[in-house]
Amino acid sequence: MADINKVVLAYSGGLDTSVILKWLQDTYQCEVVTFTADLGQGEELEPARQKALQFGIKQENIFIDDLREEFVRDFVFPMFRANTIYEGEYLLGTSIARPLIAKRQIEIANLTGADAVSHGATGKGNDQVRFELGYYGLKPDVKVIAPWREWDLLSREKLLAYAEKNGIPVDMKHKNGGAPYSMDANLLHISFEGRHLENPSAEAEEAMWRWTVSPEAAPDEAEYLDVEFEKGDIVALNGVRLAAHEVLAKLNELGGKHGIGRLDLVENRYVGMKSRGCYETPGGTIILKAHRAIESITLDREVAHLKDDLMPRYASLIYNGYWWAPERKALQTLIDYTQQTVNGWVRLKLYKGNVIVVSRDSKTNSLFDMNIATFDDDGGAYNQADAGGFIKLNALRMRIAGRLK
Amino acid sequence: MADINKVVLAYSGGLDTSVILKWLQDTYQCEVVTFTADLGQGEELEPARQKALQFGIKQENIFIDDLREEFVRDFVFPMFRANTIYEGEYLLGTSIARPLIAKRQIEIANLTGADAVSHGATGKGNDQVRFELGYYGLKPDVKVIAPWREWDLLSREKLLAYAEKNGIPVDMKHKNGGAPYSMDANLLHISFEGRHLENPSAEAEEAMWRWTVSPEAAPDEAEYLDVEFEKGDIVALNGVRLAAHEVLAKLNELGGKHGIGRLDLVENRYVGMKSRGCYETPGGTIILKAHRAIESITLDREVAHLKDDLMPRYASLIYNGYWWAPERKALQTLIDYTQQTVNGWVRLKLYKGNVIVVSRDSKTNSLFDMNIATFDDDGGAYNQADAGGFIKLNALRMRIAGRLK
Amino acid sequence: MADINKVVLAYSGGLDTSVILKWLQDTYQCEVVTFTADLGQGEELEPARQKALQFGIKQENIFIDDLREEFVRDFVFPMFRANTIYEGEYLLGTSIARPLIAKRQIEIANLTGADAVSHGATGKGNDQVRFELGYYGLKPDVKVIAPWREWDLLSREKLLAYAEKNGIPVDMKHKNGGAPYSMDANLLHISFEGRHLENPSAEAEEAMWRWTVSPEAAPDEAEYLDVEFEKGDIVALNGVRLAAHEVLAKLNELGGKHGIGRLDLVENRYVGMKSRGCYETPGGTIILKAHRAIESITLDREVAHLKDDLMPRYASLIYNGYWWAPERKALQTLIDYTQQTVNGWVRLKLYKGNVIVVSRDSKTNSLFDMNIATFDDDGGAYNQADAGGFIKLNALRMRIAGRLK
Amino acid sequence: MADINKVVLAYSGGLDTSVILKWLQDTYQCEVVTFTADLGQGEELEPARQKALQFGIKQENIFIDDLREEFVRDFVFPMFRANTIYEGEYLLGTSIARPLIAKRQIEIANLTGADAVSHGATGKGNDQVRFELGYYGLKPDVKVIAPWREWDLLSREKLLAYAEKNGIPVDMKHKNGGAPYSMDANLLHISFEGRHLENPSAEAEEAMWRWTVSPEAAPDEAEYLDVEFEKGDIVALNGVRLAAHEVLAKLNELGGKHGIGRLDLVENRYVGMKSRGCYETPGGTIILKAHRAIESITLDREVAHLKDDLMPRYASLIYNGYWWAPERKALQTLIDYTQQTVNGWVRLKLYKGNVIVVSRDSKTNSLFDMNIATFDDDGGAYNQADAGGFIKLNALRMRIAGRLK
Repeated sequence: MADINKVVLAYSGGLDTSVILKWLQDTYQCEVVTFTADLGQGEELEPARQKALQFGIKQENIFIDDLREEFVRDFVFPMFRANTIYEGEYLLGTSIARPLIAKRQIEIANLTGADAVSHGATGKGNDQVRFELGYYGLKPDVKVIAPWREWDLLSREKLLAYAEKNGIPVDMKHKNGGAPYSMDANLLHISFEGRHLENPSAEAEEAMWRWTVSPEAAPDEAEYLDVEFEKGDIVALNGVRLAAHEVLAKLNELGGKHGIGRLDLVENRYVGMKSRGCYETPGGTIILKAHRAIESITLDREVAHLKDDLMPRYASLIYNGYWWAPERKALQTLIDYTQQTVNGWVRLKLYKGNVIVVSRDSKTNSLFDMNIATFDDDGGAYNQADAGGFIKLNALRMRIAGRLK
Repeated sequence: MADINKVVLAYSGGLDTSVILKWLQDTYQCEVVTFTADLGQGEELEPARQKALQFGIKQENIFIDDLREEFVRDFVFPMFRANTIYEGEYLLGTSIARPLIAKRQIEIANLTGADAVSHGATGKGNDQVRFELGYYGLKPDVKVIAPWREWDLLSREKLLAYAEKNGIPVDMKHKNGGAPYSMDANLLHISFEGRHLENPSAEAEEAMWRWTVSPEAAPDEAEYLDVEFEKGDIVALNGVRLAAHEVLAKLNELGGKHGIGRLDLVENRYVGMKSRGCYETPGGTIILKAHRAIESITLDREVAHLKDDLMPRYASLIYNGYWWAPERKALQTLIDYTQQTVNGWVRLKLYKGNVIVVSRDSKTNSLFDMNIATFDDDGGAYNQADAGGFIKLNALRMRIAGRLK
Repeated sequence: MADINKVVLAYSGGLDTSVILKWLQDTYQCEVVTFTADLGQGEELEPARQKALQFGIKQENIFIDDLREEFVRDFVFPMFRANTIYEGEYLLGTSIARPLIAKRQIEIANLTGADAVSHGATGKGNDQVRFELGYYGLKPDVKVIAPWREWDLLSREKLLAYAEKNGIPVDMKHKNGGAPYSMDANLLHISFEGRHLENPSAEAEEAMWRWTVSPEAAPDEAEYLDVEFEKGDIVALNGVRLAAHEVLAKLNELGGKHGIGRLDLVENRYVGMKSRGCYETPGGTIILKAHRAIESITLDREVAHLKDDLMPRYASLIYNGYWWAPERKALQTLIDYTQQTVNGWVRLKLYKGNVIVVSRDSKTNSLFDMNIATFDDDGGAYNQADAGGFIKLNALRMRIAGRLK
Repeated sequence: MADINKVVLAYSGGLDTSVILKWLQDTYQCEVVTFTADLGQGEELEPARQKALQFGIKQENIFIDDLREEFVRDFVFPMFRANTIYEGEYLLGTSIARPLIAKRQIEIANLTGADAVSHGATGKGNDQVRFELGYYGLKPDVKVIAPWREWDLLSREKLLAYAEKNGIPVDMKHKNGGAPYSMDANLLHISFEGRHLENPSAEAEEAMWRWTVSPEAAPDEAEYLDVEFEKGDIVALNGVRLAAHEVLAKLNELGGKHGIGRLDLVENRYVGMKSRGCYETPGGTIILKAHRAIESITLDREVAHLKDDLMPRYASLIYNGYWWAPERKALQTLIDYTQQTVNGWVRLKLYKGNVIVVSRDSKTNSLFDMNIATFDDDGGAYNQADAGGFIKLNALRMRIAGRLK
């Protein structure tokens, strides 16, 4: 067992990380620094402070930070600039939050002189990888404690028993009715795994969903929404300029109201297994659709195709936890470069689960040339005869090959 | 002007291709063979025969073929095996039909001893490229006549005047109210371009759409649908085995009823301009969603990612007209190889524009391993400690780099 | 410690695997099956049998197989069809042999009812990964024993001490002068790592190289060589038809004589570190050059480019040990498909380290069209005016963008 | 025929562009501005001024610019940062010069108020595309005159007749012995096409080569060369700091002396045909080898692999003439970003056609960690046991799939 002096724990205040807090104190006999982040998960954070104090954590070792703006501005928005989707479906809501948590944990470790960090992710999932690649990338010699890979509390029963034995409060919801869903929430999404979702042929229960109404329960009236972009990021909704995290909060509200952004899928984890997850990403679903629409008139064709070709790789990097890796940064450099011209607006219609693009334009950067595109006489803007040579030369290699046969 | 003996014209029987038919006869003084294909566009084809006869086309030079099954089985389905989408949105409904028309035209040219082929696509669009790359790829020395690039009937008025002068019947719809939408239909989709769509900031009119009701007008009750796959293709719906084109026809019916598959976008044409199009692809929208779902449990992760990486390139090849090119065939070989294990079923819920995957399974090829994926005790199926080494080695290069700083 | 019944050991007969043999017997108290492969490494294999018998291995548990033809035909040649190079330099000589050894080990495990396999690769290198991914891919529940990751004989001294204590003969070369190079040889190459090569700024000693003379010592007279390809594989040299492994053996002889195929590089291991290696790949160096040359006249441009785009990924898969993974097989399907037309001959000049292509042709599949390529009057085979339209349309998107500025 | 006022001609002073100069004056009755660039082709430029004056070109309309430093610094070096090779062999010596010529031509057009530009490239080659994509990209509405696609002087005889008729001096070399090679030279390379090279099965004549001695004729003594890199560019040779173009000139001298950089290949032109070319790129061949070597110790593995994956695409963009296109710029942004750490030195041995890397190091950015890489006891720098978990999780998906069979 590593010799640990002080450890920074990513602490939610919930049952699992409270057990970990206690276990760290007992097992490593070390000082614990708790770090609780507001990423827009929609929970009160002050109770985490109270709990930490109860475990004897010193006041100066309790960090509670509002990271919402940084989260959306520096992580969520850059990711959406690439139209990022993992495996054709998943909007990476959990994946994109981990690098920020890791970064802040390392900052706090440096501030407090801690030599170790710890998190509550299990040994089967992707989050352990995302946290730890972040830790190692930002502080190569940090010691990492991953209790789920070390301890023997692998069943729910053992965990609850340990909690009770150590006076850690256990909510009624934990005591009854078996394990809860494994959930994760932040401004971008809320996710659900476990329980009967472990059977991919079982339909998700309506009662599970938290942020969105069902399309059936959404309003019968569609709602129009105007979205304005600058350099690929949304800066205003319906004409009102907002900070990044306010944009996403507002879009979540609108999307949730209209039943937008539910997803039920089986994904491939980096650690090698398939896993079934359900996600609610109301705002993100809207951003993706709108971003593709604004790019459709402001981005050069080949630049757009280059981005499309690279996107799955970029998505895998984020999914797998390589946000802080140099190859992700190199790709981001390219992506950000392309967004200089992505300025303009998109009008969307939100209706019962649908995000419908109805119009789009850019005052400054539209590459849509009506004079050329028209079916009417274009007055010579485009010489149709050019197409003959274009086709002939593109066909040449096939004609030469065809003559051989 | 080329010396033409006999030309095979892709003939719809409509105004434009009728004018072309006459123009070919007059301009090239050559024999014309008409070819009219049933690709499921939902129009009567016999009137085309009558019109052809009126132009003096010989009975044996009139070809009317039902290509629906071949179209879906050998073109649409292979394309969907790759989860093909162009520029993140477009399902390639027009693009995928052109290679089949070109192939059949060349077959007829060979049958009838024709030395030329002709089509009615304009010099600004992608279809001319798709037709002609097909022609040249399949018959390298064929002569190609593209009237829109040659004649002087470039405005609607001149075209109508030519028609009237030559006794070609002009429907009332053509005489009034300006140009119609430029439309294309087959079993996979119907498309709309032109008119006020030429302004990308103008919303499409509800009256334009043909195959789908609006989500608002769709039933208030969701409908479940069971889809069964073999080797990546749908072979049965709700337990009823169907031929490929019957599958698509049925899905179009269901999708259209539930307001599924409308799309409004700006795309990048191969000839260099941006263009706005609206599409209805009800069945195709369902296939794509279902196919991703069945792959999610039957396809290896890295194979799925390889397919995702290659998909945009494959989509561009089809969009640009390279179906018959060797690089498309090479990619298809890879794609088809991967589909051997894509067997199983998916349950979907159709509701007001939404295609929702609710469950999926495969008796023979599921790679989803509940024992490993479970949050409960897995009895040692997966050793969580392995993840420590996995992360350590994946982080090693970043740690070494980090120490330099 | 796992409960092992019978283990198949990849056994070279050398010091390290002899120590492992003994260690397996002592540590696991299990029956050991030895497997020794002739991959063209140029060593006598019968001594391995004698040594195995001395350790008490039963006659029926000693497997010595000549795999040379299978190695070149089914592994080396398929790899060269892709013009495979790792990181711009390395011809993957070690990487490509491991999957065959793993396959044969698993076959022998199945034949002998063994429940485990073992190899002598260290815990720092790529070979352990290549062996074990092969084992697990071909026999998912096999037990794997990797002594270097388990035992405490991590220093050279401890290993020698263990050998002496257990009566394992130690050559003089091992006793004196420190550790030898870490070497690996098969028909494709011989590799060197370790010793002073561990310092990447130190030049390799001339005395290290085994298979090739230095360019300086090579003949002063160049030698011409005619190479004939069928479906991308070399089938004849100077007009003499040879089996796959005979081709490679002959090319090694010629290349070695002319100082061809030495390489000194730093590579990135899959396990996360950089490592310096020196390689001699005389025949492989010739194959690569000749294969590119025959493809240059027989392969379609876009197919060639597709292969080039995919090659680094394919190379990484082989380097990292994923030969038996489904994504490598999928890529191979594509690569092999493209080689149908790769038939013809190439003339090379070998001289003091240089492999110089001087001419190439294909009777059946040349896509080189002299009539079109000529600088002289081509009699209309190519219409230069076509290029105007070709350029205009390819430039269109840039012109539209340029007008915005 | 376009109405032209003033045209900037890329003018070498040779026979072909002199004929073009005269033809432009006669055909378009327009003012001609001549532009002659020194790109290191090794020819006197002042004769071009005299000839231009003889054609009545005004003094202020004659531009002769030394672009050597800009050429190497802003075009050649950025390209080599990507280890760029087209189709596995070609170092793009001609391709990389065209964008600079186009840029300067457009600058001169803007300076002189010209409305048109012209070049002497034929309608069959890539250079017309490279020039014109540059023109259109930098000045969208410029008029382009490509005489070879317009005039009727398509045979050598007609061209010479036109020259004689118009008093354009024709060298003896042009009058005798048929057409010369089609050649292009600049600091990066000299190329040869045409004549008997049009037959790809014919060996090139020794007498053709200009810049390099044959390996046979090169010195019998090897020469060592120390190359120093900063941010991916060579800044010093043997300890002497040099400007970019001085570096390349010196490397050409050294490479030429040692018989380095000859190439004989068949390439795929963008206009659809295969073409045979011979190239001498002595300095470039050395740069490529050295650059890969310095990257091998200073670049992260995944960054290096990303670059390798993108390189063929980047090479095609340059080959096809898209230097000024936004997708090339986007890729360059990524490539340049990666070169920040590419600092250090490489030692090479030059000998009879060979460029041999013998050592490399970086004081500031070496990622080579001897402590970890060593075969000796590493004192715990690397925990070999980690590899077990690493392999297990990487194998997991294959094991799950294997169990199905």
